[in-house]
This record gives sequence, C-alpha cells and structure tokens, in this order.
Amino acid sequence: MIPAPLEHLMKQLSRLPGLGPRSARRAALHLMVSPSAMGNLAHAMEEVARQVTTCTTCGNVDLTDPCNICTDAKRDGSLLCVVEGVSDLWAMERSGAFNGRYHVLGGLLSALEGVGPDDLRLGQLLARVEGGVVSEVILALSASVEGQTTGHFIAEKLKPHGVKVSMLAKGMPMGADVDYMDEGTLNLALTGRMAV
Amino acid sequence: MIPAPLEHLMKQLSRLPGLGPRSARRAALHLMVSPSAMGNLAHAMEEVARQVTTCTTCGNVDLTDPCNICTDAKRDGSLLCVVEGVSDLWAMERSGAFNGRYHVLGGLLSALEGVGPDDLRLGQLLARVEGGVVSEVILALSASVEGQTTGHFIAEKLKPHGVKVSMLAKGMPMGADVDYMDEGTLNLALTGRMAV
Repeated sequence: MIPAPLEHLMKQLSRLPGLGPRSARRAALHLMVSPSAMGNLAHAMEEVARQVTTCTTCGNVDLTDPCNICTDAKRDGSLLCVVEGVSDLWAMERSGAFNGRYHVLGGLLSALEGVGPDDLRLGQLLARVEGGVVSEVILALSASVEGQTTGHFIAEKLKPHGVKVSMLAKGMPMGADVDYMDEGTLNLALTGRMAV
Repeated sequence: MIPAPLEHLMKQLSRLPGLGPRSARRAALHLMVSPSAMGNLAHAMEEVARQVTTCTTCGNVDLTDPCNICTDAKRDGSLLCVVEGVSDLWAMERSGAFNGRYHVLGGLLSALEGVGPDDLRLGQLLARVEGGVVSEVILALSASVEGQTTGHFIAEKLKPHGVKVSMLAKGMPMGADVDYMDEGTLNLALTGRMAV
C-alpha cells in the first residue's frame, strides 16, 4: 500500500533519535507533499556535510579545525572538561559556568551496547594530559551507571599522570522540592551535603 | 557556539511534524557525526522526489498516476471515502474494512489556521461525484470540531447531486472501559446506541 521509496524514507527518518515509527511516517508524508521542505532539508544537510567539521583536538563540531574553543586564547587551558557528546558541551557552554577547554568522548562505556574504551576518544584525552598544560580534568558525565563507570575508568587512567580529577556534584536540581525527589537523589544529596 | 549550517539543519528538522527543537538538535548532531546516516537520508529523499507522485484523481501517493487504488478494477467505484490526508487513507486500508475508492482532501477547514474551501481538493470531489459513478460518499474525518465542520460543509455541497452521504460512527473505541471514557464520548455513544 505504501510506495517502496516512501517506506524507505520512513525507515531512514525513524533512525533519527527522537523519531518513532509513527512520527517518521508523518514526517515522510510531510516531506512528500511539500517539495520545498524536502529541498530545504536536503540543502541544509549538504551544507553541514560541506562546512561543518569535527575538531581533531577536542571532538567539538565547528567550521574550523581546531575549533573556536580550542584556539580561544582567553580560555583557561589548564582546565579540561570531559563530556559524553557535543550536546553536553553546548549545555555546559549555555550554563556560562566554565571557561576552560573540552574533550568530547563520543559516548560512554557500556557493556550492554558493546562500547569499550577503544570506541571512545580516550587515547586523545591521555595524550592531551601528557602534554603537560592540563592541571585539572573535570568529568561532566551523566549521573547514570554508564556515566559513573566511565568516569571512574578515566580517573584510574589519569592517576599516573598526577593530574587533579573531579566530577560534577550530585544532588537536588535547582527549584526542586524535597517531597518530589527520588530516594537515590536524596541519598546522594545527603552524602554530598555542604557546610553553610 | 553552534555552527550556522548545523543551526540551519536543526531549524529545517524542527519543522517536521513530531520533532521539537530538542529532538531536532539531537537528530542534527546524529546526522553530523554519522555521514552514512546523512547520505542514506538524502538518497531516500531523492528517490521519493524522483519516483513517488500524487494521484491527480484521488490525492493518494503512489509510484503511478492514477494510483493503484484508482485503477484497481476489483474495487467498488460506487463507494467514495473522503479522508483528510494520506495517512488516514493508510489507516482505513489497514483496517481492511473498505473496498471502495478514496478522495484525499489535503486538510480540514479551519478558521484558526486560515484553511478555506479553496485550500482543499473539494472541486475535484464534486467533479468526481458529478461523473455519476459514485452512489455513496463516506466521510472518514476526525471526530474534532474541524473534522465535523468540514464533514457538514461537504454534505451540504453534495446535497444537490442526490448522492448518499454518511460519516463514520462515533462511540467507544474497541477494548475501552466505560469507566475511563470522557463525557463527550459517552454522550455520543448513548445518542448513537444500536439495537442488539
């Protein structure tokens, strides 16, 4: 009933994160009946493929390699923030709280999904630390099993290099009610309580 | 912070139905870091643009014009089912309950969104009915204000042509509990009750 090329487009769209089979179907039909939307999307993808590149130093995406953050002399090169992906780097930048440089891992260790140390940009991280400029590595990883496992793995690897390693604090997010917090978060917030 | 071409790709992706700004950001980054996914998506769109066409008779999408359903001699040409979009036609086909032909409106009348009768494929519908083969028009439109308004508008237009006009029954969906039904649905189900 559904023409094969349209079915194939749905399949490709459904592989995008955040699009289930149902939304992929709607999106494909939307593109089919609106040639201008399809043309714009195709053109936008072409431009990204042509212009945007991955920074070989830190793994960020930018128009230049090395990226703007790596070449910015006003940033503190002694602080290195390790993040899972580029969207996490953007989130840190939006917070405005960090003025060092980044290192994008490109994933988290996961036995379940078969992601091992060689699948992440760990060698490059060690090479950067061995360069001697970095004095502190801040692990800004998810507060999940994978995030914490990856953090501890990296901390172990960095130990021999005599560099300070820290991780983001865990506790209640801003604006949260104690009443609505899960037990795990309250546990972490209590353990990590700070003097006032 | 976000490279302009990537930002532009996010904007194009966020225009797809079902993709919010957050999912569009994740999807754009996914495409950026996976050139094969981007290539496959681009190729799939090209193939749809090249091969899939809209049936000028009914508005369905297919590899041929007129479409498979319009040319299928085993289908009952006296029954014409009016639907809002192609996805509704697919839903009707999945049900397996209908063996006539279709007419895709391409939308619903909506004062709010500025959709008037001239924006829908209403002229073509009247022309098909005037052709004389159709004996019953079944309105398979949403049970929403727009769907019902559009249905009544079409029924009025068809009146002079002496064709039977019907619409989908309203009531409880299959497997539903009375307990969980909203008042509107129960009202409709009671009004439209059937003898057993």
